Amino acid sequence: MINMNLNPTFKQLETELSKQNNPIALIQNPETIRLLTNFSTDPHERIVALVYSPNTTPLLFVPALEHQVAQKAEPDFIVKSYHDHEDGWKLLSDAIKDHFPSQSNFAVEKVDFSLFAAEQIQKHFKDVHFSVDLTPIVQQLRLVKDQEAVEKLVYSGTFADKAIEIGKNALKVGISEREVVAIIEFEMKKLGVSQMSFDTMVLFGDHAADPHGEPGDRTLKENEWVLFDLGTMVDGYASDITRTVFFGNRQEKNPRHKEIYDIVQKAHDTAITAVKPGMKASQIDKIARDIITEAGYGEYFIHRLGHGIGQSVHEFPSIMEGNDMELVEGMCFSVEPGVYISGDFGVRIEDCLAVTENGSKLFTKVKYDF
Amino acid sequence: MINMNLNPTFKQLETELSKQNNPIALIQNPETIRLLTNFSTDPHERIVALVYSPNTTPLLFVPALEHQVAQKAEPDFIVKSYHDHEDGWKLLSDAIKDHFPSQSNFAVEKVDFSLFAAEQIQKHFKDVHFSVDLTPIVQQLRLVKDQEAVEKLVYSGTFADKAIEIGKNALKVGISEREVVAIIEFEMKKLGVSQMSFDTMVLFGDHAADPHGEPGDRTLKENEWVLFDLGTMVDGYASDITRTVFFGNRQEKNPRHKEIYDIVQKAHDTAITAVKPGMKASQIDKIARDIITEAGYGEYFIHRLGHGIGQSVHEFPSIMEGNDMELVEGMCFSVEPGVYISGDFGVRIEDCLAVTENGSKLFTKVKYDF
Repeated sequence: MINMNLNPTFKQLETELSKQNNPIALIQNPETIRLLTNFSTDPHERIVALVYSPNTTPLLFVPALEHQVAQKAEPDFIVKSYHDHEDGWKLLSDAIKDHFPSQSNFAVEKVDFSLFAAEQIQKHFKDVHFSVDLTPIVQQLRLVKDQEAVEKLVYSGTFADKAIEIGKNALKVGISEREVVAIIEFEMKKLGVSQMSFDTMVLFGDHAADPHGEPGDRTLKENEWVLFDLGTMVDGYASDITRTVFFGNRQEKNPRHKEIYDIVQKAHDTAITAVKPGMKASQIDKIARDIITEAGYGEYFIHRLGHGIGQSVHEFPSIMEGNDMELVEGMCFSVEPGVYISGDFGVRIEDCLAVTENGSKLFTKVKYDF
Repeated sequence: MINMNLNPTFKQLETELSKQNNPIALIQNPETIRLLTNFSTDPHERIVALVYSPNTTPLLFVPALEHQVAQKAEPDFIVKSYHDHEDGWKLLSDAIKDHFPSQSNFAVEKVDFSLFAAEQIQKHFKDVHFSVDLTPIVQQLRLVKDQEAVEKLVYSGTFADKAIEIGKNALKVGISEREVVAIIEFEMKKLGVSQMSFDTMVLFGDHAADPHGEPGDRTLKENEWVLFDLGTMVDGYASDITRTVFFGNRQEKNPRHKEIYDIVQKAHDTAITAVKPGMKASQIDKIARDIITEAGYGEYFIHRLGHGIGQSVHEFPSIMEGNDMELVEGMCFSVEPGVYISGDFGVRIEDCLAVTENGSKLFTKVKYDF
């Protein structure tokens, strides 16, 4: 056993495992592995696992072609690997037996651990128990961000702001949704953003009424609304923003659309102003939802108010009815009310923020209907 | 029960389920749902499920915000949905009980079905059995492509060819890997390719010796090799190609690098020529591997020869040692030998193909070291 330099999050995991009778943590989710170690991987269907039990040296099990990268990323860990033609599950099981003898009590992220993986482990161990679900523990590890993480989220947000400006400036009669997406992503790549945090969404007119619409060949006409929903991955942290802007002569805005836009904006602003430690997630959702419902559009606001954000674009806390989790300083999430009237009009306005001592800090600041 | 217009793949699934005592197929993988239905979804952490047992109407269970899209995509299916604040697993279980009464024998894709999902279903049903693993059945459904699918793969390949030419033409002294990626993807988007099939890889010099390297700020120098590995998603079908090209004066090629390149090219060409129905997947791998091993570089060829391709960029058949599956007409896969000498040089050459009656048909045709 080596005296390891585990990162603070790994130390928190160790503490949690110690409370649970020291099961063997068997982690397959690449994002969790990235949270806990310096090893970044995208294994597709190959097997990658971080295996750990308190007071032992962590084991990284990887495909052969990642062996060197893994060992370089974590020189103090034990790294074992397998070739494509070998039985990876058997070799992983053998490595676990060698390294954690006479243990068969596992802690896994049940949401990210397949029934197949469970059955493979069961095949190679006697009396296996998946007694601990790491999903809520890892969610907890990710839930409250330290100052460094918040700074990274703010920094990632500056690129999202730029992306919205680029998209807005690209609008012209006849351009297609897809062309606007291409321009945004090209300019982002030139700025060094190698990855968007999800498929960039640019939707024109009533197409924006489909909250999961996909950009296509539809071209922009004068006096149409445009919905942008996009985000960037920068230094391992995600951003996420939505703006719905009017293209054309403001005098030509359909009065009902303008009314709906203003209601959504009010819901968005009021909810953000209400954020502070001690409020419940569900209360923030309710504040925004009540405004939209009282205005008569509640049935068209068909999703939760927000989702957590951090190393990934969807994590905890979930800002919705039923989640009575109290907000604490360092929690980071989106506030994104929307109204979608099929075949007519869609609007959503979204910013992400961190809960601070007295309120919140926004990650994105670009103007609204500018 | 309605007389359904199920697509041919769905009918094949029905046949397979009928052989297995008619379990309830509970399918969560969005790609499989897309294969079997007209409904395309990207649910993130929300619950989506296609539920089906022979001689019943299929059930689609989706988040509320996808209800309309799902019903429009499959008007004859039963569509049920849930809101974010509701217990989706309970509602899904209730819908299954209503629709498939007194059944509790499930068929799931065990590789894509989480231990969490299994435990949720177990909570709501008595005596649940996950008796049938749909993973190999779905793989089989996807394994042999019909003519229409092969045509789509050929078409998707033409964009991959163009992408390589665009990348090659973008090379100049001082450009960064990341800038070349941006140019390729921008031009692809302009051509209507909204999605690459994976993160585009452009690696300069010895950086190409890392088979999973990520493009960065490294800039190109005269007389360096450049590795491109990229693919496009077109009409729901993936392409995938790798080229390693020399930038500079051919007279300046390091003779050892040239020798290694030629060996990999020979392995690639010889393996492709050997492809025909009746050969085993493992034989194709061995033909390429033997050439590289006999030349003394076997230890640097650290991955299987190829992977299947279709609606996704990694599927079956796997072209590797140990897979003695016989090739049949309509199987589609990559042939991609590579040699990686850390800190020095990396080369990989990849094309995808369909097995034809007498040989194979290539999806990509752009030149090699041009």
